[in-house]
Amino acid sequence: MTNLDSAFASLADPTRRAIISRLCEGPKSVSELSDPFDIALPSLLKHVRVLEESGLISSVKVGRIRTCKVETHALQATKAWLQQHITTWEERLDRMEAHIETMKRET
Amino acid sequence: MTNLDSAFASLADPTRRAIISRLCEGPKSVSELSDPFDIALPSLLKHVRVLEESGLISSVKVGRIRTCKVETHALQATKAWLQQHITTWEERLDRMEAHIETMKRET
Repeated sequence: MTNLDSAFASLADPTRRAIISRLCEGPKSVSELSDPFDIALPSLLKHVRVLEESGLISSVKVGRIRTCKVETHALQATKAWLQQHITTWEERLDRMEAHIETMKRET
Repeated sequence: MTNLDSAFASLADPTRRAIISRLCEGPKSVSELSDPFDIALPSLLKHVRVLEESGLISSVKVGRIRTCKVETHALQATKAWLQQHITTWEERLDRMEAHIETMKRET
């Protein structure tokens, strides 16, 4: 799996997107993260692990507390892929529009 | 599955991302699409179907030819989700920076 494969796959789950949302407000411990979620801690930890493996978040354990933070370069990379393709498509539309204008003027 | 779930899941595959890439240059028939890919037509059609179900592309069959095109609003929606979260994170950094500046001035 490339980084994009695993980043997009990680983002395909609503709980994992909600974890990203909360971490974008600031780093949080796993127990703080689990608060609003009605899921068992092992399930939450599994999502955290998937997000870590895809590089979208990282975590550090100090004593008994594991603190997670978002890694925005991975979010940026997925956004960049989308932006690049949207731009390609928009440029094509612009070229088509210009072509139609030229045809109009010539007839 | 929400739209975001299925859009992100669709984008997690390199062949499907390559199909999106090619369709951003313009609509293509399934046989044109299959040209650069070293995969059997049924496999390609499976990817096309996944992309259609997620709303990232659409296709129309006229006679024996099925033509696919990209649906950029679905690409835009996934990009918007990412952009919104990157912005939240950047605003947090800005607030932290301002706070540190204030603290520096006060000491």
